[in-house]
Amino acid sequence: MKRIFTVLLVCSGFAASAQKSENLIQYVKPIVGTQRMGHTFPGATVPFGMVQLSPETDTVGYELNGHYNPKVYEYCAGYQYEDKTIVGFSHTHFSGTGHSDLGDFLIMPTVGQLKLNPGTADKPHSGYRSPFSHANEVAEANYYKVKLDEHNITAELTTTTRVGFHQYTFPKSDDAHIILDLMSGIYNYPDKNVWTYMRVIDDRHVVGYRLTNGWARTRALYFAMEFSKPFIGHGYKNFSKREVYGGFWGKFASVKNFPEIAGKNLRAYFNFGKTEEGEKIKIKFAISPVSMQGAQANLAAEAKTWDFDQIKKEGQDAWEKELHKITIQGNKEIKENFYTSMYHTMINPTVYMDVDGKYKGLDQEIHTAKGFTNYTTFSLWDTHRALHPLFNIIDPERNADMVKSMLAHFDQSPEHMLPVWSNSANENWCMSGYHSVSVIADAVVKGNVPFDANKALEACVTTATHRDYLGIGDYMDLGYIPDEKDGNSVSSTLEYAYDDWCIAQMAKKLGNEAIYKEFSKRAENYKNVYDPKSGFMHPRNADGKFRKNFDPFTTINQGFIEGNAWNYTLYVPHDPASLIKLMGGNKRFVTYVDSLFSYNLPDKYFAETEDITKDGIIGNYVHGNEPSHHVAYLYDWTDKPWKAQDKIRMILPKMYKPTPDGLGGNDDTGQMSAWYIFSSLGFYPVAPASDQYAIGSPAVDGAVVQVGNGKTFNIHVNNQSAKNVYIQKIILNGKPLNKLFLSHADIMNGGEITFFMGPKHK
Amino acid sequence: MKRIFTVLLVCSGFAASAQKSENLIQYVKPIVGTQRMGHTFPGATVPFGMVQLSPETDTVGYELNGHYNPKVYEYCAGYQYEDKTIVGFSHTHFSGTGHSDLGDFLIMPTVGQLKLNPGTADKPHSGYRSPFSHANEVAEANYYKVKLDEHNITAELTTTTRVGFHQYTFPKSDDAHIILDLMSGIYNYPDKNVWTYMRVIDDRHVVGYRLTNGWARTRALYFAMEFSKPFIGHGYKNFSKREVYGGFWGKFASVKNFPEIAGKNLRAYFNFGKTEEGEKIKIKFAISPVSMQGAQANLAAEAKTWDFDQIKKEGQDAWEKELHKITIQGNKEIKENFYTSMYHTMINPTVYMDVDGKYKGLDQEIHTAKGFTNYTTFSLWDTHRALHPLFNIIDPERNADMVKSMLAHFDQSPEHMLPVWSNSANENWCMSGYHSVSVIADAVVKGNVPFDANKALEACVTTATHRDYLGIGDYMDLGYIPDEKDGNSVSSTLEYAYDDWCIAQMAKKLGNEAIYKEFSKRAENYKNVYDPKSGFMHPRNADGKFRKNFDPFTTINQGFIEGNAWNYTLYVPHDPASLIKLMGGNKRFVTYVDSLFSYNLPDKYFAETEDITKDGIIGNYVHGNEPSHHVAYLYDWTDKPWKAQDKIRMILPKMYKPTPDGLGGNDDTGQMSAWYIFSSLGFYPVAPASDQYAIGSPAVDGAVVQVGNGKTFNIHVNNQSAKNVYIQKIILNGKPLNKLFLSHADIMNGGEITFFMGPKHK
Repeated sequence: MKRIFTVLLVCSGFAASAQKSENLIQYVKPIVGTQRMGHTFPGATVPFGMVQLSPETDTVGYELNGHYNPKVYEYCAGYQYEDKTIVGFSHTHFSGTGHSDLGDFLIMPTVGQLKLNPGTADKPHSGYRSPFSHANEVAEANYYKVKLDEHNITAELTTTTRVGFHQYTFPKSDDAHIILDLMSGIYNYPDKNVWTYMRVIDDRHVVGYRLTNGWARTRALYFAMEFSKPFIGHGYKNFSKREVYGGFWGKFASVKNFPEIAGKNLRAYFNFGKTEEGEKIKIKFAISPVSMQGAQANLAAEAKTWDFDQIKKEGQDAWEKELHKITIQGNKEIKENFYTSMYHTMINPTVYMDVDGKYKGLDQEIHTAKGFTNYTTFSLWDTHRALHPLFNIIDPERNADMVKSMLAHFDQSPEHMLPVWSNSANENWCMSGYHSVSVIADAVVKGNVPFDANKALEACVTTATHRDYLGIGDYMDLGYIPDEKDGNSVSSTLEYAYDDWCIAQMAKKLGNEAIYKEFSKRAENYKNVYDPKSGFMHPRNADGKFRKNFDPFTTINQGFIEGNAWNYTLYVPHDPASLIKLMGGNKRFVTYVDSLFSYNLPDKYFAETEDITKDGIIGNYVHGNEPSHHVAYLYDWTDKPWKAQDKIRMILPKMYKPTPDGLGGNDDTGQMSAWYIFSSLGFYPVAPASDQYAIGSPAVDGAVVQVGNGKTFNIHVNNQSAKNVYIQKIILNGKPLNKLFLSHADIMNGGEITFFMGPKHK
Repeated sequence: MKRIFTVLLVCSGFAASAQKSENLIQYVKPIVGTQRMGHTFPGATVPFGMVQLSPETDTVGYELNGHYNPKVYEYCAGYQYEDKTIVGFSHTHFSGTGHSDLGDFLIMPTVGQLKLNPGTADKPHSGYRSPFSHANEVAEANYYKVKLDEHNITAELTTTTRVGFHQYTFPKSDDAHIILDLMSGIYNYPDKNVWTYMRVIDDRHVVGYRLTNGWARTRALYFAMEFSKPFIGHGYKNFSKREVYGGFWGKFASVKNFPEIAGKNLRAYFNFGKTEEGEKIKIKFAISPVSMQGAQANLAAEAKTWDFDQIKKEGQDAWEKELHKITIQGNKEIKENFYTSMYHTMINPTVYMDVDGKYKGLDQEIHTAKGFTNYTTFSLWDTHRALHPLFNIIDPERNADMVKSMLAHFDQSPEHMLPVWSNSANENWCMSGYHSVSVIADAVVKGNVPFDANKALEACVTTATHRDYLGIGDYMDLGYIPDEKDGNSVSSTLEYAYDDWCIAQMAKKLGNEAIYKEFSKRAENYKNVYDPKSGFMHPRNADGKFRKNFDPFTTINQGFIEGNAWNYTLYVPHDPASLIKLMGGNKRFVTYVDSLFSYNLPDKYFAETEDITKDGIIGNYVHGNEPSHHVAYLYDWTDKPWKAQDKIRMILPKMYKPTPDGLGGNDDTGQMSAWYIFSSLGFYPVAPASDQYAIGSPAVDGAVVQVGNGKTFNIHVNNQSAKNVYIQKIILNGKPLNKLFLSHADIMNGGEITFFMGPKHK
């Protein structure tokens, strides 16, 4: 028996390693999640690229007739699959967020009469936009192609880290243009464009910048643009109600072909006159958070060639390298789900510095990253759960650079806080908690510490004791946030308690007993909002009494954010055993979790749920939002661990499909995808900052994980199928694993694990 | 006889050199020109200081009910002598301009109830402004003091080059505040404030910036502010119609004491609680064109002490040094006029770089000035005439740095042009001509060339052949600008002709025969707009015909700017002899110039005249505007040179008085004052870029000029009085001067000149 297993192991190991040479990009479908709520974008980017060059299918104002325009939400990533027109290609995007910004520097090639308005979707001829069809669209990692039907132009996009590379194949035409729309942006608040500037150096080189007041309060982005062919003329139009002030510029005979423009709402154009059939006009478009000079240097450093295919190949090679960090066995759909998930975990955070290491800091000053790559776009409420833990396994060095970026953020933060949601030298303060501490503690606990851990601990403590921020003062005084003080008092209390536990773990690892004790005590604060009468985590007043009118199904005004009480009550990832006890013991707890998955939430409640489609919900379990991501794994702490396996294998195919509408909710800068990767491999970090992973049910037939230190962790899965979702036994490095947990060391030391699967739970 | 003269010379020479030890600041009256049209400011500055810290007596919107508000013009320098209230003290000003900008970072100390609106002049209690009285006001070079009656606070201001130093002496109070108004500015266009940002580092240190779209299209200025005493709280109010976007800042319990703010229209305040009677709160306020870090470094480098008197003294010592470059003999009024003029010639241009040499260039990028001090605020239409020639005598090194700044401007200019009116990394394109070439050629011809003169010549030629700018293309094709193409076709043609002559002189000096010939030919283009029929320089159509309807008295719509045909016809400074011939010879010319001074311009014409008060006009001679500044000296080319002496001695006391209303027109960044200095010394550079100065009639009783190369030029004036205005003879270095011209070498070689004056012309 043992012998047979050995043979099997060797075979599957061989198979897994043979996978390495397979092209994995073929399984990446950037189009996944672009329909409805996924909020991903289909365009081109290299892993963690500062430039993320993608089509916008509409530019929607944040306000409509003076009120919030709900349609703006659909365009968090600029692209909606069901749209019929494209307005252009812009250079910066978020992937999967539920609020947005960016969409900088929209470029659109056109022929014929010059139009400087985008026009409307129902009347595309009224503007520069063009109808397109998915039949003429190709979306690969670092490559996007589409035919712009209106203009008979084929657009192709690829990128380097800091340069967008456009290739437009024109028809025979008498009047070819390229439009640079400096107004366009995602989440276009009125007056979002604070200032834009453009300088034409010569007939092939243009630089400029844009300063916006959006989700990021004060965001500047600079560009340098190079055309492959000289333009024969250029110009702009001011779309502000007022003329731009500034000097007596009327002294120039013409406003056309002007070497510099500035204003709040400008669209520029470059004319190329006649084009031949099939003539290509290419653009290298570099960005910089620092200066136009910085953008020029980025362009010079990264895009030396005009060979589009070479740039594309270099970026795709980079993707292959990243994707190969985990090679799996499985059918095409599994591979498409898996590698599309891998792809989506490597878009945000993004590099945020020039090739010389300069970047803008939170203090709005220019800094130089010394010894690390600086990143921005930390959506930490989402990503602390599984994305950063994933990086800690397959890319620990990059994760440490992200931690260093967070610590630089802290140093530069006027509020003296670690990032909550960092957005291009700004803090959005989006969502609750101070989950940077989870990411930092996770790295420290797991020994990935190429930074000053004691200084990092100090930053964590400073952040966690900022009394003026989101109820922290009350939380410190009372042990919970009173209902009357904050609309999300319960979820915030729960999240703080988890974060405090992270700080305690980190302090313990660093031998700081005082902080360990203080924050271990704070980590129990979740108990203060549990109401034994209602059986839920429950809003509580400052006088200690629990709120009377309370609806555990409702998300709105019940003390929680992006989750109702039923889901959030389970949010004690750092101490499920105590939670189970608190909630009445194993039996009641199992029933409770069961009911979460089985109770069909009435429509009236769903209407209040944020950021997910109806497909993103199972019963009352909301996978499309993050607070429940650990919930299925909680069965591991009960006498029914097989129910975890059951649920995970139900969630995986239901919530992840290799189709445009394949994501049941916002991908949230890769957190949804990171959940997929862990869960399909068979384990999950229920509580980052612990070194334990809870076992689930692998959906792959095998995997080889390059664990970032040169070692490999081989995952073998025996007899797995859609029906065989139950673990029969597990062999770790030749020995039975008699618990439902893997340690970080088990993975990072390399080795082999074999899951034996079957149709019935044990 | 000869012997007697020698004794006299020795005596007066001795007297002049004894003057050196006299305190000259006592004669500087910064208040001169603050009433009505002078547009000077009374506040504190060191020579050419980047910070020019001065009270604003009102903040006036550029528009009133949607239309241009004519009152805004009165506040070009922020201060009007007749006003009864002060709104605060801001850090940047122009001196004597006729259009404006700046007024950055207004500070106002108050006690009692906090008010964040300035209030109105007729209801000062409605806001933070305060009534004041001139009885409680002191304005010296680098020192300003005023009592703010409303608050019973004494304000004192002094500066270093880059730091404003405020000293506020409070009464006993329970509630002391210092307001930092980030909205306030001079020439407040609607939406002029593009963006402002402020970061509170700790309870004594604040940094920030302001980005404006005003006369300068895209101007950024950064600051670093240090209080002598910790504030106990701070806050701000947003005066925009909209809330400031940007993140979920509501998560902070309080918007008070917030470490950072940003927005378009903000006023901030700092609370100091109780103050004792006589308690001083001091502020060091540094600015930078580069960054907040730059401002902090400027503050640290220049203002190490909290000793107000020391900073004041250092700045006043710097003024003494500058003022001593010319010591004169004369009565108190003459000295006040003279040293106030000296003072006003050393305010603009201003230093425009940080202590480390960094500055923002015309290309909106950060540059470093290597081997020179970078300057901005070049109002060249005004200052090429006498201000830069004055610098070439008394401060050639600084003038060369200004030329280097102009050449850097050219290198960075997107339009590839030398400055016309440079304003803080922007080009205003104010007024006509390309008079940088005059300044550069003047330096080259006079041998002040510590720069690459051939490269400079190239920049001049490039500028002069920019066909798209202000009729240059037509001018090059036709030899004049056609009337139908430009509203100021004649004055521009005349100015180009002079500028072209400057280029020719420079080319000649550099041995470039081709350019010399080309531009010597262009220099004669003034002849193309002289109409022998009308006897005036006259608007001419493209077809060669002169305009039919023409009024030589009117300034508006007759082909001229800031001058009518009668004045402008004399604008051929580079070739008066040919002009005289062109205009019909000596006799007609003398009659023509006579009539200019004697013909009383009817009121209806005066109403159209810009930038001067009615006192600024003598007959039809408009001294308050620059195009006539050389006119009185033109008699030197006729058989009636005594008329020059006559007129100059009429103009001097009429146009310059040591009183608030003592300037008959805008001082125009020192040009009016430079005219005073030259003319009162007895000579004037009619055509800069020639090495000749025309002799006038000295109004001083003697002077010693430190000519900037270590030598001194001694001017003795014998028997001069208000009646004795006519030159009887001139002795230069012991020999009679038998012509009406001094050469630059005569002055720069050092030596002695003696004017013998009498009551009757010779």
